Amino acid sequence: MDQLSVEHLLGIKYLKATDIDLIFKTADHFKEVINRPIKKVPSLRDITIANLFFENSTRTKLSFELAEKRLSADVINFSASQSSVKKGETLIDTVNNILAMKVDIVVMRHGNVGAGVFLSKHVNAKIINAGDGTHEHPTQALLDSYSIREKLGSVKGKKILIVGDILHSRVALSNIFALQLQGAEVKVCGPTTLIPKYITSLGVQVETNLKKALEWCDVANVLRVQHERMDIKYFPSTREYTQLFGINKEILDNLGKKIVIMHPGPINRGVEITSEVADSNQSIILNQVENGVAVRMAVIYLLAQQIKR
Amino acid sequence: MDQLSVEHLLGIKYLKATDIDLIFKTADHFKEVINRPIKKVPSLRDITIANLFFENSTRTKLSFELAEKRLSADVINFSASQSSVKKGETLIDTVNNILAMKVDIVVMRHGNVGAGVFLSKHVNAKIINAGDGTHEHPTQALLDSYSIREKLGSVKGKKILIVGDILHSRVALSNIFALQLQGAEVKVCGPTTLIPKYITSLGVQVETNLKKALEWCDVANVLRVQHERMDIKYFPSTREYTQLFGINKEILDNLGKKIVIMHPGPINRGVEITSEVADSNQSIILNQVENGVAVRMAVIYLLAQQIKR
Amino acid sequence: MDQLSVEHLLGIKYLKATDIDLIFKTADHFKEVINRPIKKVPSLRDITIANLFFENSTRTKLSFELAEKRLSADVINFSASQSSVKKGETLIDTVNNILAMKVDIVVMRHGNVGAGVFLSKHVNAKIINAGDGTHEHPTQALLDSYSIREKLGSVKGKKILIVGDILHSRVALSNIFALQLQGAEVKVCGPTTLIPKYITSLGVQVETNLKKALEWCDVANVLRVQHERMDIKYFPSTREYTQLFGINKEILDNLGKKIVIMHPGPINRGVEITSEVADSNQSIILNQVENGVAVRMAVIYLLAQQIKR
Repeated sequence: MDQLSVEHLLGIKYLKATDIDLIFKTADHFKEVINRPIKKVPSLRDITIANLFFENSTRTKLSFELAEKRLSADVINFSASQSSVKKGETLIDTVNNILAMKVDIVVMRHGNVGAGVFLSKHVNAKIINAGDGTHEHPTQALLDSYSIREKLGSVKGKKILIVGDILHSRVALSNIFALQLQGAEVKVCGPTTLIPKYITSLGVQVETNLKKALEWCDVANVLRVQHERMDIKYFPSTREYTQLFGINKEILDNLGKKIVIMHPGPINRGVEITSEVADSNQSIILNQVENGVAVRMAVIYLLAQQIKR
Repeated sequence: MDQLSVEHLLGIKYLKATDIDLIFKTADHFKEVINRPIKKVPSLRDITIANLFFENSTRTKLSFELAEKRLSADVINFSASQSSVKKGETLIDTVNNILAMKVDIVVMRHGNVGAGVFLSKHVNAKIINAGDGTHEHPTQALLDSYSIREKLGSVKGKKILIVGDILHSRVALSNIFALQLQGAEVKVCGPTTLIPKYITSLGVQVETNLKKALEWCDVANVLRVQHERMDIKYFPSTREYTQLFGINKEILDNLGKKIVIMHPGPINRGVEITSEVADSNQSIILNQVENGVAVRMAVIYLLAQQIKR
Repeated sequence: MDQLSVEHLLGIKYLKATDIDLIFKTADHFKEVINRPIKKVPSLRDITIANLFFENSTRTKLSFELAEKRLSADVINFSASQSSVKKGETLIDTVNNILAMKVDIVVMRHGNVGAGVFLSKHVNAKIINAGDGTHEHPTQALLDSYSIREKLGSVKGKKILIVGDILHSRVALSNIFALQLQGAEVKVCGPTTLIPKYITSLGVQVETNLKKALEWCDVANVLRVQHERMDIKYFPSTREYTQLFGINKEILDNLGKKIVIMHPGPINRGVEITSEVADSNQSIILNQVENGVAVRMAVIYLLAQQIKR
C-alpha cells in the first residue's frame, strides 16, 4: 500500500505533492463512507487517540473527534483548562504521561509555534498538528485544497487569492504551502500592516486593491477578522476594514465572472463577508466543513498504517 | 409502524394525544431494556447525535447522553462555554457547521424562547428541544406524565397540582400542555406574583392556599425555588416561601388521603420540600429520573425512524 | 472465582493483604491486554460507570476513563463545575439522580475526607474513591505498590521512603497503609511542620535528614511540592525546600547503591526532583502511569464481578 513520506503531520511544509495526492485519494473513499447511512468503518479499532487542545476550539475539535469515531478509534479528550498544565507541569511530562497510558496518536493544538515539532522529537507517538500558534494548521489547508479540487476538478494552475490578516494566520501560511506544492498561483490581499514582509520571498504576490485581486483569481479564501487586531497598531477599525476588504454581492457581481468563495470559519457576517455571499451558491463554506471530516479521517488512517501492530 | 405526527420535538403544544401514547408505549419497551443486565440496543448505530447545551445542565444532559448511548448512536457534545459562540458566530452558523459534519439529530438547550423552532426552519436535522428559556421543556413533561401513568395507571381524569414559581418555569408550561392533552385537570399554586396572568386562559385553575390545593389534588408536582427570584420583586424571602408553600410531612398527614409527590430536581431540601417528604414512599422523584432515560430513548428512536436511510 | 473482601474501594485501610494480591494478579492480566495491539476486552459491556470529579484532575481521570473503555464499559463523565452542585443540591441527591439512570459503579474524587464512605452508606452502587481530601487515594497506592513489585519482585521486606509534604498528602497515607499491609518498612522524610504528629503511632519512622533517609531505603517515593504550602506557616520557601529535600543526581550517586525513584506526578522539575533524576533509569515514574491503567482495570473488574446480573 502507498505510504506517506512523513511520520507525523506537523506542517504542510514537510509534505511532498505525492503525500497530498495520497491523502486526497484516501479522503475520497472516506467521503463516500460518511455519506452512507452507516458512516463508520472498523479500521482503527486497535488505535487510541488523544485530542490535546491547549487552546479553545470547537469546529476543529469536533471534526477530529468525529473523524476518529468514524474510524472506530478509542478517543480521549484533554483540554488545558482542566489540566495539570496549570500546576506548572512541562508539555513533555503532560504528553509522556498520556502516552504511558498507551496512546498511539496525539492530535494537538497549542499556542506556541513549533509545539508539534518539539513534541515529535521527544515522545513515542504519531503527532498531528491541529494548529500551532501563528504557524501552521495543516489539516485546514488540506481540506481547503480538497474542496477546491472537488469544485474545480484540480488545484493545479488555479489562481487562489487569500484575503485578510495574513500576518497572524496559520490558515494562510499552511494554505500557501499546500497550494504552491500542487502547482497553484497564490496572491494575498489585505492591509499592508497585516501582510508579513517575507511573503514575497515565498513566491506569493501581494495586491492591496481588493477589486483588482478578485478580478485576478478563480477562488477567494476569505479569512476571519480578529477584532482584537483592529486597533491602532494594525488597522483603524472594523468598519473601515469592511469598506476596503469586505466581500459583498455587489463587488462579486461586477467581476464579470463567478469566482469560488471560501472561509475557514467562524464567520463574522457583515464584516469580512456579507450573509448574501456566505450563503450564495458561489460559496463552498459548508463543503469545506464536510470535507474536513473526510480529510482528517484520511490523515489519521494513513499515519495509523505506519504503526506496527 | 406508527409514526409521530411531528418532525421535531419542539414543544408539547405541537403534539397530539396519539403522539404521547406512542411515545409512552415505546418508552415502556425501553424501560424494560434499561432494566436488563445489558441495557443497550443496537437500533441507532447509523445515527449521529449532537448535544448542544448553550446553558448549563447536569441531569438533563446526562439523561440524554445515556439515552443516546443505550440506543448505540454516536454522540458528540458541545457546550457553549468552549465554543465559537463566544467569537460572535450566529446560532445558525454554529449549527450548520455541526450539521455539515453529518449529524442527524440535534438536542438543544438554549436560553432564548423559540430557539428550537427557529433552528428547525433553517437547518436540515431533527431538533429536540431540551429547554428553551422560560418556554417549554417537553421531555421533562413527558417523563412527568409517564411517571404519573406508571404510578396511577393513567393520566386521564387525574387532578394534578403544580406548586411554585409558575411564571418562570418551562417545566410548568410543558406539563400543563401535556396533562391537558391527556385529559387531566390542572391547578397551580404559588405566590400571585409568580403566577402569570394568562394562566386561567389556558384552562388552568389557580389556588393560592396550599392546604386547599393539596386537598384537591391526586398528585403535587413541586417546582424548585430559584433563590434569585426570592426578592422584593416577586416574594419577600425564601423563609416566608417555605412557611406558605413548602411541602412537609405534617401538611400531607393532615390531608386524610395519600397524594403522589413529584419534583423535577434539583431539590432544595427544606425549602420547597422537606427531606422527610422527598424521601418518603409518596415521592416518585427518583422514578421520574429513571423514566427520563426511557422516555428520551423513545423520543429519539421515534424521530430517527423518520430519517431516510 | 476469587472475590474481594470489600464491596467498595473506599480506602486501603479497609483492604486485606489477600485483596491486594488478587488485585495485582488481575492487573497482571490486564497489563498484558493493554500491551496487545487490540487493548480492549469485552468484559464489562453490561456495566455503566459514572466518573464524578468534584475536584480537578487530569491524569487520574484519564487513567480511569481509559481503564473503563478498555473494559468496554459505558462511561459518563460529570464534573462539578458544570453541575447542579452549584445550585445547592446535596451530594446524595446528585448521586442518587445519577444512579436512578442505572449506573453501576461510581468513581468519585471529592474535596471532603470520607465522602466516599458516606456515599457508600446511602446509595446503591459500587463506589471507588479516586481521592477524598487529604485522606486516601487508594488506586494511587495500589499502582505504586504494583510498580515496586514489578521492579523489585515483591513489596514484602522492602524499605520504602516517602519524601515531602506528608501532612496534606492522601498519596502518602494510602501508601503507608498499602506498604505495611504487604510487609514493607516505611519511613517518611520532610520538614517537621509537614509531618503529622500521629505518624509514628502508625508504625512509621521519621527521618528529617534526607541523606540518611536515602541511605536507608530501597525505594524513594517523592511527593509533589505544593507551592501554596511553601510559606511562613509550613516552610520558608521553595528554594530552601529544594536545598534540603530535593532529589538530585549528586545525592543519589553518593549513596553507594542504586535506589528506585517514584513520583505520583505532576512533577515540578527542579523543585522536589531534578530532570536528570526523573528521566534516569532509576526512575519508574512512567511505569507508574502505565500500571495505573492496568490496576484500575483490575479494581473495576473485580468490583463488577460482585454485581448481580
